Amino acid sequence: MSIAVVITDRNTDDLCRHLCLALPEVPIQQWPEITNPEAVKMAVLWNHPVGITQQFPQLQMAVSMGAGVDHILTDEAIGEDIVTARIVTQVLKQNMAQYVLQHILNDHRHLIDYQQQQTQKVWQVLETDFQPAVGFLGLGELGSFVADQCHALGLKTLAWTQSQQHDVHPCFHGESGLQHVCVNSDFLVILLPMNAETADIINSKTLSWCKVNCTLINVGRGGHVNEADLLDALNHGKIKHAVLDVFKQEPLPTTHPFWSHHKITVTPHSSSRSDVQQTAEQIVSYYQSLI
Amino acid sequence: MSIAVVITDRNTDDLCRHLCLALPEVPIQQWPEITNPEAVKMAVLWNHPVGITQQFPQLQMAVSMGAGVDHILTDEAIGEDIVTARIVTQVLKQNMAQYVLQHILNDHRHLIDYQQQQTQKVWQVLETDFQPAVGFLGLGELGSFVADQCHALGLKTLAWTQSQQHDVHPCFHGESGLQHVCVNSDFLVILLPMNAETADIINSKTLSWCKVNCTLINVGRGGHVNEADLLDALNHGKIKHAVLDVFKQEPLPTTHPFWSHHKITVTPHSSSRSDVQQTAEQIVSYYQSLI
Repeated sequence: MSIAVVITDRNTDDLCRHLCLALPEVPIQQWPEITNPEAVKMAVLWNHPVGITQQFPQLQMAVSMGAGVDHILTDEAIGEDIVTARIVTQVLKQNMAQYVLQHILNDHRHLIDYQQQQTQKVWQVLETDFQPAVGFLGLGELGSFVADQCHALGLKTLAWTQSQQHDVHPCFHGESGLQHVCVNSDFLVILLPMNAETADIINSKTLSWCKVNCTLINVGRGGHVNEADLLDALNHGKIKHAVLDVFKQEPLPTTHPFWSHHKITVTPHSSSRSDVQQTAEQIVSYYQSLI
Repeated sequence: MSIAVVITDRNTDDLCRHLCLALPEVPIQQWPEITNPEAVKMAVLWNHPVGITQQFPQLQMAVSMGAGVDHILTDEAIGEDIVTARIVTQVLKQNMAQYVLQHILNDHRHLIDYQQQQTQKVWQVLETDFQPAVGFLGLGELGSFVADQCHALGLKTLAWTQSQQHDVHPCFHGESGLQHVCVNSDFLVILLPMNAETADIINSKTLSWCKVNCTLINVGRGGHVNEADLLDALNHGKIKHAVLDVFKQEPLPTTHPFWSHHKITVTPHSSSRSDVQQTAEQIVSYYQSLI
C-alpha cells in the first residue's frame, strides 16, 4: 500500500521527505516516478494529468493539495466510490487572509495617494472615516476565516452563500441575495468552489450591480470571472479595480490584456500556499483514517 | 460647569455637535472661543497651547484626544490633582492595526516585486514561507490589539515591556530584553508612551542590534527615534526600511531628508484616528464619572 503524490506544478521533494519520515513503512511515490501504480491507496493531486488514477486500481482516497477540489470532481476517472478530501491548513487560511487584507488595506488606506504625497512632500491626512463593506462570494472554511479577520479590523462584512447563515457575517442567498451583496460591497472577494453554478459568476449582469468604486478580488478560480465582461466593466468605469490571482489559463499568457491594464493587479496564483509541515500532517491523518 | 475642547490641529465641529446632543445641559466651549474659562470642569486636549489650563480654576479632568498623554504630563500647568484620561476607542485600535498590517504585509508579501513582475509580464511565485517576527516596543492597549491581529494572521510576535507579561506574546524586559527583541524582529513596531526613558530609544545602539532585513515602523511618537542615527543605519544597510508616521517636528518640514529617502516611507500622522461617535461617547462617560 502506498501514497502517490501527483503534483505537477511545483517541487514536492520536501513534502515527500516529510511524508517518508512520518510514515516510514509507507512507500511514497513521487510523480512522475509512479513505479508501482497497483499499490496506490491514496493519491495527493494538484494539476494532475486527467485520468491518471485509472492506473491505481486500489485507490481509496483522492486528496486535493489545496482548498479547491474541482480538478478532482471533474476528472471522470475518479469515481464516486473514491473518497475525496482536501488540504486546508491554518497557514493556508492565514496566507489567504494576508493577501486579501493587503489589497483591501492598500486601497482603503490610500497607499498610492500617500506615496504620491511623499514624492511631493505634501503633509495631508486623507479621509478613511467610512467603514468599507467587504462582500464575500462564498463563506466556506477559507471565506469565513478571511471575513473574521476583516471584521476584527473594523471592516463591515456580508456574504453570498447557498443557504448557510453566520452569526457575525450577514448572509444572503439566491439571485436576489447575489444582487444585494454586489450592490452593497466596496470590495467583492471571490472564494467560491468552482462548479457549473459558479462559472462566470462575475459577468456583465453581476458587474452592472456593483458600485462604481468597487474593487473585485478574485482568489477563487479563474473560471469564476468572464474575462471579456470584466474588461468591459473596467473600461467603462462600472467598477474601479480588479485584483486577480487566478485565471482561466495559468500561467497567464504574456499576450493577455490583463497584464498591462492599469485597473488590474495581476499576481501569479500566489495568494496562498500551505506550509509543508501542516500539509504533511493532514495527509498523514487522512492516510491513517483509511487504515 | 462646562467642557472645553482645546484641539488645535483639526476641525472639531462634528465632535462638539455630538457632545452638545449627548449633554444638552452642558455648555461645550470650542477652542479658540473659550468664553467662560472659570466654568471649565473638563478639558479635552490635543496639540493644546501649553499652560492654557491655568485659565481653568475649576478643572477636574484633562482628557487626551488620543492614546498618547505626553502633552498632558509635560504641561506643568496641569497639576497632580487633575485627573488625566485618554481616548482609546475600538476604531482607534482597529485603524492602528490596519496601518501596521498594511505595511508589514506589503513587505512580507512582496508588493513591489509583484508590481514589477506584472510590468514585465513575469509569472513567478515568490517565497513567503518563513514566518516573520513582529517585535513590539510597548504592549499597551494599542500594542496588544495590533499584536493580536498579527498573531491571528500567522505572524510571530514578541514584545518589550516594562514588566508586563502576556499569554500569547512573549515579553522581555530591561536592556537585555530590548536587545533580544531587536535581534529577533523582522519588523519592529513602536507603540510606546513618550517619556524620558523612551526618548530616542531607536538610536545607534538599538539599531546596531537589529537584523539587516528589519523594517522599523514608528507609530508611537517622533521623539522615540534619533533621526540622525536612523538615517545613518539606513544609509549603511544596518536595517532595511523605515515606515514613519510620527516625527519630532510635525508637519515634517519640506527640507527634511526623510521625505526623499528611498528607504523611508513617510505618512502624515495618519495611522489612526478615532471616529467621532465613539470619541464623544467616551468623553461623555468620563464627564459623567465626575458628577
